[in-house]
Amino acid sequence: MARTRLLIEYDGTEFSGWQTQPGARTVQGEIERALTVIMGSTPPFMGSGRTDAGVHARGQVAHVDTPEPVDAFRLRGSLNGLLPESVAVLGVEPAPEDFHARYSARQRTYHYHVATAPRALDRLWRTTLRSTPDVETMNEAAQALLGTHEFSSFCRTRSETTNRVCTVHHAQWVPEAREGDWRFEIQANRYVHGMVRAIVGTLLEIGRGRREADSIPDLLASGDRRLAGPAAPAHGLVLHRVEYDAPVFTPTFA
Amino acid sequence: MARTRLLIEYDGTEFSGWQTQPGARTVQGEIERALTVIMGSTPPFMGSGRTDAGVHARGQVAHVDTPEPVDAFRLRGSLNGLLPESVAVLGVEPAPEDFHARYSARQRTYHYHVATAPRALDRLWRTTLRSTPDVETMNEAAQALLGTHEFSSFCRTRSETTNRVCTVHHAQWVPEAREGDWRFEIQANRYVHGMVRAIVGTLLEIGRGRREADSIPDLLASGDRRLAGPAAPAHGLVLHRVEYDAPVFTPTFA
Repeated sequence: MARTRLLIEYDGTEFSGWQTQPGARTVQGEIERALTVIMGSTPPFMGSGRTDAGVHARGQVAHVDTPEPVDAFRLRGSLNGLLPESVAVLGVEPAPEDFHARYSARQRTYHYHVATAPRALDRLWRTTLRSTPDVETMNEAAQALLGTHEFSSFCRTRSETTNRVCTVHHAQWVPEAREGDWRFEIQANRYVHGMVRAIVGTLLEIGRGRREADSIPDLLASGDRRLAGPAAPAHGLVLHRVEYDAPVFTPTFA
Repeated sequence: MARTRLLIEYDGTEFSGWQTQPGARTVQGEIERALTVIMGSTPPFMGSGRTDAGVHARGQVAHVDTPEPVDAFRLRGSLNGLLPESVAVLGVEPAPEDFHARYSARQRTYHYHVATAPRALDRLWRTTLRSTPDVETMNEAAQALLGTHEFSSFCRTRSETTNRVCTVHHAQWVPEAREGDWRFEIQANRYVHGMVRAIVGTLLEIGRGRREADSIPDLLASGDRRLAGPAAPAHGLVLHRVEYDAPVFTPTFA
């Protein structure tokens, strides 16, 4: 058995999320279909984690198992030839047998992209805000997310996940190249369902003066999703990078 | 009569270019239709220049004339409410009577975006190259474009424009934020039809070693479009900025 890992970018707009589901068009499903064409049968294929419907990725990592080692360069070309334009395989490389896209992942970074003016060219993955928030205040508030907490207050209420403890290493709004464009960067070991979008929605309420900047600790302690802000729209969210103990795809993804 | 200028971003993918044409969907046509809804009749409306089918803009400038001065903030909101998502009005401001979007324009800057790896999220406005070109050699070659030249060698053969003299002030490939992404920046007082795409196609041949790096002066002197490279695909090209004697839209477009 040979394990190969893939680095994948996708535009989630027209997908029902990452994970294969009967009767739905998903990113994993598209890639499995392409692998089946190439391999003649459907190989075991697993991503680092799910992304919701409409959420994108620039750095999703997955692994596939084959009876014999594959030619990485050729597999990348074949996959990109078979996949729709909304899914791009950026890198393919051999992985050690003990590498697991999901269970070996140590950190996952998401970026949430906003603009304070309408945008036509980036509209697939950037949401336009109705007003300009106070970024400095949002960044002060975001400091309270750092460290290890129970994130039930930012977890979708219908989630069946019982372990809601996550360790957040980085949470910050940063300006992008274009005036008026910002992104929220968050890096954590794991996430509960809907966590990033709930955090962004809550921070934006703080940035508009509708919620106190020092309210995050009480909100975390409450464990009550109804006390947090509304989920920000899915289309602004991008899974930016997944990190492992050893660097992966270093020449293609610095 | 009051003159008002507009700063416009658009995704040209689904348009037959900028300029209004009977029976075709164009950006100017969409904006004229929205202005007609707002004003009750179609006002005189003029852009800084045409862009071809499939070409985008981040900084197209246009002007509109109305009998009375308009509320710029409100007009921007009304237009963005009426226009499709692929057209965004970034700024609206009063213009002096002697300002003319086309005839007062002094410099126009285009960016042509490429990637050396497949891209899903930027695929609307970035073309993926089959191989990685030698950027340093392309930049050496591009120096020969600077200054005032007859650009018939880079002008679509069916063009009816007789004046093909343009002055190029800047022509350079620069790396973008993401590894593997590059853009070609060109700033000139004017362009002949298809000029930027023909230049990009020619420089890419040089970057792949299929054409001599010092061949641009002879190519310019020949005046023969057949001797230049193929036009690069329309969808990588973005009208980035139009400059006038005095700065325009300075708070919204730094």
